[in-house]
Amino acid sequence: MTPGVGPRAAARLLERFGSAEGVFGALRSELERLRLRPEAVESIALRDRHAAAEVELERLRALGGAEVLALDDGAYPALLREIPDPPITLYARGAWRECLEAPCVGVVGSRRCSTYGQNVAHLLARELASRGLTVVSGLARGIDAAAHRGALEAGGRTAAVLGTGLDEVYPRDHRRLADEILGKGGALVTQFPLGTPPAAENFPYRNRIISGLSLGVVVVEASELSGSLITARLALEQGREVFAVPGNITSRNSFGTNFLIKGAGAKLVQQWQDVVAELPAEVASALLPPESEGGKGFDARTAPPPADLSEGERAVLKLLTADEPAHIDELAGRSGLPVQELSALLLGLEMRELVRQLPGRCFVRKM
Amino acid sequence: MTPGVGPRAAARLLERFGSAEGVFGALRSELERLRLRPEAVESIALRDRHAAAEVELERLRALGGAEVLALDDGAYPALLREIPDPPITLYARGAWRECLEAPCVGVVGSRRCSTYGQNVAHLLARELASRGLTVVSGLARGIDAAAHRGALEAGGRTAAVLGTGLDEVYPRDHRRLADEILGKGGALVTQFPLGTPPAAENFPYRNRIISGLSLGVVVVEASELSGSLITARLALEQGREVFAVPGNITSRNSFGTNFLIKGAGAKLVQQWQDVVAELPAEVASALLPPESEGGKGFDARTAPPPADLSEGERAVLKLLTADEPAHIDELAGRSGLPVQELSALLLGLEMRELVRQLPGRCFVRKM
Repeated sequence: MTPGVGPRAAARLLERFGSAEGVFGALRSELERLRLRPEAVESIALRDRHAAAEVELERLRALGGAEVLALDDGAYPALLREIPDPPITLYARGAWRECLEAPCVGVVGSRRCSTYGQNVAHLLARELASRGLTVVSGLARGIDAAAHRGALEAGGRTAAVLGTGLDEVYPRDHRRLADEILGKGGALVTQFPLGTPPAAENFPYRNRIISGLSLGVVVVEASELSGSLITARLALEQGREVFAVPGNITSRNSFGTNFLIKGAGAKLVQQWQDVVAELPAEVASALLPPESEGGKGFDARTAPPPADLSEGERAVLKLLTADEPAHIDELAGRSGLPVQELSALLLGLEMRELVRQLPGRCFVRKM
Repeated sequence: MTPGVGPRAAARLLERFGSAEGVFGALRSELERLRLRPEAVESIALRDRHAAAEVELERLRALGGAEVLALDDGAYPALLREIPDPPITLYARGAWRECLEAPCVGVVGSRRCSTYGQNVAHLLARELASRGLTVVSGLARGIDAAAHRGALEAGGRTAAVLGTGLDEVYPRDHRRLADEILGKGGALVTQFPLGTPPAAENFPYRNRIISGLSLGVVVVEASELSGSLITARLALEQGREVFAVPGNITSRNSFGTNFLIKGAGAKLVQQWQDVVAELPAEVASALLPPESEGGKGFDARTAPPPADLSEGERAVLKLLTADEPAHIDELAGRSGLPVQELSALLLGLEMRELVRQLPGRCFVRKM
């Protein structure tokens, strides 16, 4: 709240004086040496925002279940701390601890979206949340709202990152959604002080936090100049995984997502497993346990071979192990099948996620 | 037509004896040393298929405008000659010379397809053919037919590769389409002798020729176990570019194409330029001439900056050259814009194909 002190100056101050207390106990001459703006030096030396800060904390307590996390708190989300210039304070309300301790995945997209986009966001968020991931989004209309609702439907965790103060939900008609998120074990998060009204220039900061909190961000639908594409770009710059859901090239709403896949290195998502497979191994293996819990028929990886395999596919699958890559010529020899037919059978098995092709026309069984 | 002699044995014979005449002039003992099947040695030594071959050539002449190209002809398509085990004879009818001398691109997909798929195949084929590419497809229902028709509508070239003899068009109700292709400067091509009826086992050979003739293959729509996926796999194995058109993940018809993009290295196609951009440089540059001929607003690359750029985008574009990559921090300094806003503007320019991002957050203007 100190005038003239943004995240960078704050970081410099904390580095120099070790803690907020250290900063406010510093000599004016020491502050001046850090080349802060004069009004910042003045405000810190006079501690003239302390009364306002007390009021802020009281209002926060009155709101119920809300806290301010400081960058040097143990509670501050570890992934967010890694981004360039993380916010030095983060306001959080609801079950933020549980939500932010679990692995988070952002699910975002256009406000103006198609029914397809809404359905996919809802479905994907539901599937991800039901596996224990926290679905992070921006509480906006369209894809964001569908993502939060999908996670809630699964009885899972969801965190809404706001571009306003915790007490100023935007858009207004998402107040009920915000209440539902709080009531069902979700969380609201923002870097903006109480009372901050919606302002266009704040939403990019919100997007930075969505990707900053998340291991990866899934863009479900985005038109040519959608803000979600900025989120995707920020996520890439923060070293996060970026995913996009493809759509018909004749749909404006999928232009941006198709573009991300084509030209910006986003990974194509057909189903929730495509997201989980790219998360760090320890997260992915916890979410895809060795014993299948019935992934609605999607998760073939851990299940016994599906009953509808053809005889040929079954025979080829038997020739493969998970440890020893087999060359296609070797498989042709062992199966007695022409390479062309074998290739077709292997492709079928690959598409059912039973087999993986390695470089050099070698194949292994997926476990 | 010699029993027991497929492409491999034929290749061995030609290698040993230099020409078809050499093969038929060979001593029986020489033939036996090549470990051919006994019936093949017998047939070659007795020249017992020569009369049948004469009849075949006469029937072909009667058909009009048809020829047999042999592997060692100059007229045999050069790209097809490069694939493993190319057919030693290729039947061609119509303007095959013009069609196969021009750069070819396969446009294929499911027989059962959606309206979306049909529209995209038609549009894409039209755009590609109007730039002088020959659109190669399989004369099947669905995507194939739409691709041929799109090329014809553009007044461009199209070649239909058959899984039957030249005189046996399949499906029957595509006879008129086949006639239209021949009448409008297109061609029919097959490896199968006259009179070969449709048989399921022959269609994979047809697919091999589609990709074999082509610099790249675009799969427009394909369900999970579609033959088009086999074509894509064969094309990859032949070292051809493979492209796929994405579609809604809720559509069965796009499952295969999305899968190809996600897991099999296919390039995502949003518009015809995405195909051309991946073709060999000399082909691409001939098709994308320095002076834009008005690509329906798609081809921004060569046009002056579009009128609908924002002031910010215009300003950023002015800072960029085609030769000197500029780092984003440098651009921020020169423009006075915050990096975040700049990043958004650059992404917008990138999506309009005016700017390219290089590794290390550097940017250049596209020419």
